[in-house]
Amino acid sequence: MLTLYSFGPGANSLKPLLALYEKGLEFKSVFLNPAKFEHHSDWFKKINPNGQVPVLDHDGKIVTESTVICEYLEDEFPTSPALRPADSYGRAQMRVWTKWVDEYFCWCVSTIGWHRMVGNMVRHLNDEEFEKMVERIPLKEQQVKWRRARAGFPKEMLEEEMRKIAYSVKRLEARLAVSLWLVGEQYTLADICNFAIANGMEFGFPELVNAKDTPALLAWIRRINERPACRLMFERQPSEWKERRQAQQAQTQAQGQAANR
Amino acid sequence: MLTLYSFGPGANSLKPLLALYEKGLEFKSVFLNPAKFEHHSDWFKKINPNGQVPVLDHDGKIVTESTVICEYLEDEFPTSPALRPADSYGRAQMRVWTKWVDEYFCWCVSTIGWHRMVGNMVRHLNDEEFEKMVERIPLKEQQVKWRRARAGFPKEMLEEEMRKIAYSVKRLEARLAVSLWLVGEQYTLADICNFAIANGMEFGFPELVNAKDTPALLAWIRRINERPACRLMFERQPSEWKERRQAQQAQTQAQGQAANR
Repeated sequence: MLTLYSFGPGANSLKPLLALYEKGLEFKSVFLNPAKFEHHSDWFKKINPNGQVPVLDHDGKIVTESTVICEYLEDEFPTSPALRPADSYGRAQMRVWTKWVDEYFCWCVSTIGWHRMVGNMVRHLNDEEFEKMVERIPLKEQQVKWRRARAGFPKEMLEEEMRKIAYSVKRLEARLAVSLWLVGEQYTLADICNFAIANGMEFGFPELVNAKDTPALLAWIRRINERPACRLMFERQPSEWKERRQAQQAQTQAQGQAANR
Repeated sequence: MLTLYSFGPGANSLKPLLALYEKGLEFKSVFLNPAKFEHHSDWFKKINPNGQVPVLDHDGKIVTESTVICEYLEDEFPTSPALRPADSYGRAQMRVWTKWVDEYFCWCVSTIGWHRMVGNMVRHLNDEEFEKMVERIPLKEQQVKWRRARAGFPKEMLEEEMRKIAYSVKRLEARLAVSLWLVGEQYTLADICNFAIANGMEFGFPELVNAKDTPALLAWIRRINERPACRLMFERQPSEWKERRQAQQAQTQAQGQAANR
């Protein structure tokens, strides 16, 4: 039996979630609420001591790290529709893209996301309540990130992350202007992992992702959203989660526009 | 035909180099001299526009990124001695370790390495010469890193990296105290990729890696150094390179001891 613990179809959680839908595998989906810090709760830390989602439980075997889970699904279920090229060179190209998401693209977008949203998530907590929450986070780096997000990230850091986002968007656009998918003619984990971060950027970063500057990137985002597996994934998210996400999107959009003025 | 462009058996270059020796594959080895900034030269940027080693050329197909090259060799030459577990779960565990090297362990050790060594590499250049050298570097982040290394990294940054190194060493020791190799009973890419960073740490970081605090880590480093493939790899490095490395090691050791006083 497969069980996926995730925050639902966004960011790193989206990667294995969409891969599972694309592969047509049956699985139990457990959504954790980040606003309630459920991933830092004792019951979840028994499953992943790092207190991070997504996590895949396959008959009791625990697999962590979104990209590793995606490759695991390919290794374990090769006969379901393949999301990895059959040839070694294609796989290498795919892995350069998935590695790039994990080491570069994900981080710059995530810092701005934290800057815009996480502050709000902890505003209702006083200092003592906040520190109690932070104490439950197992990874020291994550504790630092929460404290920084609450206090406000340094201006130079935010500017540097925005530079990296602009560079990332241009890199994706240049590739997608000459290729249907990131690795040639096949839809692969490279697309899924980049989509996990790029989806919705036309709302949060309208000055960078728009019809004029990034037509190929937008067409690719639309193409993935229209895939049956992707539609199903978004339909099946709990309505409470859907509302939270819509509210967040509206907020991101407003802040994106405000930042742009 | 296989050609590997590398800086020789250290850090990221060591990963595919040792994998090639372990798999007993015939290949041409091209060593670039980092002290002469050969990786930023025009001829090499035609091979890898990012100006980074290692790079594998397999019959004209160019594969970049050390960890991706290692997985490529496993995909392409599965019948040579395998450095990847046969089962999906073992592979996932291996990838959690290789990913951790790329995203965490490598970076903290590398920053201290840059702090201790790169300053010296560019001390003989005046401002204009240095900026000319930096201009040839294709990746903006690498330019920033060179400038920072020359000017001196901020103290808080160095302290934070040292904290991460201490955490990394403890994590490796804890695992190796209960397991012969990082992923159970099989020597895999997880060992090779971590060894690439950990080898020599008993000289550069004697206060962290020593017989009293990390006996299991030291035994594992020794075990890998004694493997025939590893001996062959170190023997086959050019003597000029060997001397440079010994000088660097002596310098690192002296600075490690000085830092410890």
